[in-house]
Amino acid sequence: MTYVAPVSEQRFVLEHVVKIGELAATEKYAAASSDMVDAILEGAGQFAEGEYAPLNRAGDEIGARWKDGVVTMPEGFRAAYQAFVEGGWGSINGPEEFGGQGLPYALATVIMEDLGSANMGFSLCNMLTPGAIEALIAYGTDEQKAAWLPRLITGEWTGTMNLTESQAGSDVGALRTTATPLGDGGFKIKGTKIFITFGEHDLADNIVHLVLARTPGAPAGTRGISLFLVPKFRLDAEGRPAGTNDVRCVSIEHKLGIHASPTCVLSFGDNDDCIGHLIGPEFGGIAAMFVMMNNARLNVGLQGVQIGERATQQAVSYARERIQSARAGGPSRDPVAIIEHPDVRRMLLRMKALTQGARALIYYAAGQVDRAHLGDEAAKNRLDLLTPLAKAYGTDIGCEVASLGVQVHGGMGFIEETGAAQYYRDIRIAPIYEGTNGIQAADLVGRKLGLDGGATLAALIADMRAEAHDAGLRALIDSVEAVAGHLASASADDRLAASYPFLTMLSVAVAGWLMERQGRAASGAEGDPAFLAMKQAAVRFYVDQLVPEAQGLFASAMAGADLLYAVDEAAFAA
Amino acid sequence: MTYVAPVSEQRFVLEHVVKIGELAATEKYAAASSDMVDAILEGAGQFAEGEYAPLNRAGDEIGARWKDGVVTMPEGFRAAYQAFVEGGWGSINGPEEFGGQGLPYALATVIMEDLGSANMGFSLCNMLTPGAIEALIAYGTDEQKAAWLPRLITGEWTGTMNLTESQAGSDVGALRTTATPLGDGGFKIKGTKIFITFGEHDLADNIVHLVLARTPGAPAGTRGISLFLVPKFRLDAEGRPAGTNDVRCVSIEHKLGIHASPTCVLSFGDNDDCIGHLIGPEFGGIAAMFVMMNNARLNVGLQGVQIGERATQQAVSYARERIQSARAGGPSRDPVAIIEHPDVRRMLLRMKALTQGARALIYYAAGQVDRAHLGDEAAKNRLDLLTPLAKAYGTDIGCEVASLGVQVHGGMGFIEETGAAQYYRDIRIAPIYEGTNGIQAADLVGRKLGLDGGATLAALIADMRAEAHDAGLRALIDSVEAVAGHLASASADDRLAASYPFLTMLSVAVAGWLMERQGRAASGAEGDPAFLAMKQAAVRFYVDQLVPEAQGLFASAMAGADLLYAVDEAAFAA
Repeated sequence: MTYVAPVSEQRFVLEHVVKIGELAATEKYAAASSDMVDAILEGAGQFAEGEYAPLNRAGDEIGARWKDGVVTMPEGFRAAYQAFVEGGWGSINGPEEFGGQGLPYALATVIMEDLGSANMGFSLCNMLTPGAIEALIAYGTDEQKAAWLPRLITGEWTGTMNLTESQAGSDVGALRTTATPLGDGGFKIKGTKIFITFGEHDLADNIVHLVLARTPGAPAGTRGISLFLVPKFRLDAEGRPAGTNDVRCVSIEHKLGIHASPTCVLSFGDNDDCIGHLIGPEFGGIAAMFVMMNNARLNVGLQGVQIGERATQQAVSYARERIQSARAGGPSRDPVAIIEHPDVRRMLLRMKALTQGARALIYYAAGQVDRAHLGDEAAKNRLDLLTPLAKAYGTDIGCEVASLGVQVHGGMGFIEETGAAQYYRDIRIAPIYEGTNGIQAADLVGRKLGLDGGATLAALIADMRAEAHDAGLRALIDSVEAVAGHLASASADDRLAASYPFLTMLSVAVAGWLMERQGRAASGAEGDPAFLAMKQAAVRFYVDQLVPEAQGLFASAMAGADLLYAVDEAAFAA
Repeated sequence: MTYVAPVSEQRFVLEHVVKIGELAATEKYAAASSDMVDAILEGAGQFAEGEYAPLNRAGDEIGARWKDGVVTMPEGFRAAYQAFVEGGWGSINGPEEFGGQGLPYALATVIMEDLGSANMGFSLCNMLTPGAIEALIAYGTDEQKAAWLPRLITGEWTGTMNLTESQAGSDVGALRTTATPLGDGGFKIKGTKIFITFGEHDLADNIVHLVLARTPGAPAGTRGISLFLVPKFRLDAEGRPAGTNDVRCVSIEHKLGIHASPTCVLSFGDNDDCIGHLIGPEFGGIAAMFVMMNNARLNVGLQGVQIGERATQQAVSYARERIQSARAGGPSRDPVAIIEHPDVRRMLLRMKALTQGARALIYYAAGQVDRAHLGDEAAKNRLDLLTPLAKAYGTDIGCEVASLGVQVHGGMGFIEETGAAQYYRDIRIAPIYEGTNGIQAADLVGRKLGLDGGATLAALIADMRAEAHDAGLRALIDSVEAVAGHLASASADDRLAASYPFLTMLSVAVAGWLMERQGRAASGAEGDPAFLAMKQAAVRFYVDQLVPEAQGLFASAMAGADLLYAVDEAAFAA
């Protein structure tokens, strides 16, 4: 089956989790009226359903193809991308002075969700441009902003993030690409980057690479990194793409999934003629990288929701159509649709609850982006705290839901033509890129727990406690607080050993809090009775069953690192 | 890296979990001396490493190919299969009167583990023949046994299981293939079967299809099903393959994984000239099917261990070689091998513990097969109780460990050339085939809890309690007993709603019990110190961290089915 945008759900979460009405009451976001929100949700859903979803199988089966440095997308992709640009779907939250619509980021999140549910691989092209925009807004000169922002905001040009080199993955500071000043303000860029998403393609008229590199004599490690803007085509005097810039796509990867997304090896300056422009201060690259990265991390977490939604829709559809076996203990011996069998229904409700829980967490974080833009410093800190949760928990549940989707299909789930397996393959990258989930967990226990002297976490816990009713949920919040208290004085090893289970516990507590709130809101609310009943069932499943599961991680979170080092690394191979 | 058979581990589990010494003390299994066991473990490991493992990538990349009804395996497969036959690796536990070696089934399990770790897709060819052998031993006439068993036992001919039809998957009773008596004892077979593993190939001189079909006027459902032996080639007067038998491979599936295993659509009797032989009594098909199926279910559970072992070996190897980032909190700023980082080490120890836990459970079940063959009725019942656990838990952890293996590789895990992704794709079929894991859970709460009036489960719980020391493990055993007590008087819906979490809880309790036993045995044992230290670390991780996780499923197991049916099935699409 094809994708149907979950508009009721998106609207409900915007209202009760993001509290978009609060945003619309501000001068900055006054345009985000209820009617405008409805129009965007309906329009974005229809666009994704009509333009992106029909290309999802071709994206997987044909995929991006490389030949002699040129990357060709399957038929239909360029037209669909042009429709995205013409529809203005990329400019929703861009600043109005550069042609954007100035609407809340939370709405851009909904659009991104629709695009990725429809076609995850393709949507990566849309996903990385906003990071380049954010970095330029934060660090570009007025001239740079004027030259690059308008066409990035429309999507006429796309953006990339160039961090990774073969020896520098999670350890970005180990990168070796060089940037040599030319004396006229420009830099000559030389080096090879790997794993560059949409590093080359035929969808847009220019590609704006944001490249981390080292200037001559730069300090070692992350402190010596600077950020450069390196276009595929240089601009002429009128600001139009003109001459090429000595950036070559050497190859693309043969991957498990997201075949529609060309993952490029890019070689800069093979002919010593690659020009880059410094963005922000020299050695300010790592800070600029986090601006790009934090945006991308929320969006990668959102990919878990995208695939969770798509896989759930397909599994529900299959389970309602596939007739097999009578219902045990039922009055009739006639075979029924498999959705009638308790364990299939359990899987489907679990898929619903996980997807809704992660959506609540990520939309909530998106709402903090908007509040931070309004100058709310506490919201900025809360966003920073929630970003690793959004990325890691969102992608973890995306993988689980996709796997459950395969399982609901039985043997047909393993046959590629059915499509369930594609979601399972596509989403598996999400716990890895933009900082592995292990890196997210390290970020949580390393940087984020201590934000504002611990007050950021304390405020979140206080907010959760003030609203949470369920005894199990309150117990999980208590456990989270106890683990955090324990970790505050723990060794680095012990903190890191606890990091992943703690991240999951905290994520489930936050999602459980936001789900329980939605359950209360759904009780007695006006709207589609089927949607509201399903919402309440998903909330109860989340709170009654998923919250206690997360409580089961308490022992791991408190276990410490001693056991991990009880044997020598060589013994792991024994 | 290539596969290295975990001989120390296999030997240790045979000694302390299977207690193979007890088997060798019987007259029937006297040949299973310690020296013989060592020779088999070493030899099987070397065979799998040398013949099967080198073909694993080609099996995935080239795979089985179909053209005009003929299935061709990649180069090297036929020679490796012939080496398997010549080495006598298929005949270890076959009855001596038909050319087998009469050794314990537990040893055949070790051989199967090695073959599947080396090359899971290929090893399916080896995996299904034993089911055909078991069915013939149980139900064949003396003439049938003499005609078919010897060459199935050597592996010169291979066996298949033909159950599924497009409308009859989990609901086997819905099948429509017909068998019409010819008057001379033979039957004409007509129908189409799908998802037939190694239903056609070029590895062996004949293929022995065991086919479920209906005779004229047979009752509806499973009670009207009979089992037929349908060879690819009929035998001449000397018992050699001669004329073809109107069985045609119509197509093979395009699958997520196990590309080396041709999954066939088989058409029987297109030209009205397909002859089958009744195996066992008319309408005795479903009982015969369970004989084949139960064997296959243990072996499918074992596939989780196979891939768990292989994925863990590769992840450990990568983590010891890949240098990235300094260790947080460590004295040096030099980058280290990623196995030094706590969260990577946590993943690797988790992979070790899960794989060892599932191996203990499945080898233990295999030991019950041998005790049942010795006439121990309680062992037969315990085997029946453990079979759904072995199948479902083994395959679930196989998928989890393969996913962790991808994660340890970071971005490289998503690149197909690395190989980690193949394990992730290959193992995903295992929770589905030979009865989905949901069917296993239904079997557990439907048939198995009540075995011997509940005494089978009670005896298992008593054995676990008599030996378990750890407080968390004892608490899990208590919880398992409480859930089982609750389910005994629960409605069919409530039992089925609880079935999956309960299956996981009981599996972890059994594996935890057997792991804890191994931990005690390893303390002070003689042998490789690295292996013994690693065993103790894996045991502690299992007991201290995985057991409490399973305890977290208690709420789900007690929740009942009401919530699942709180909303109409149509609301799942709302």
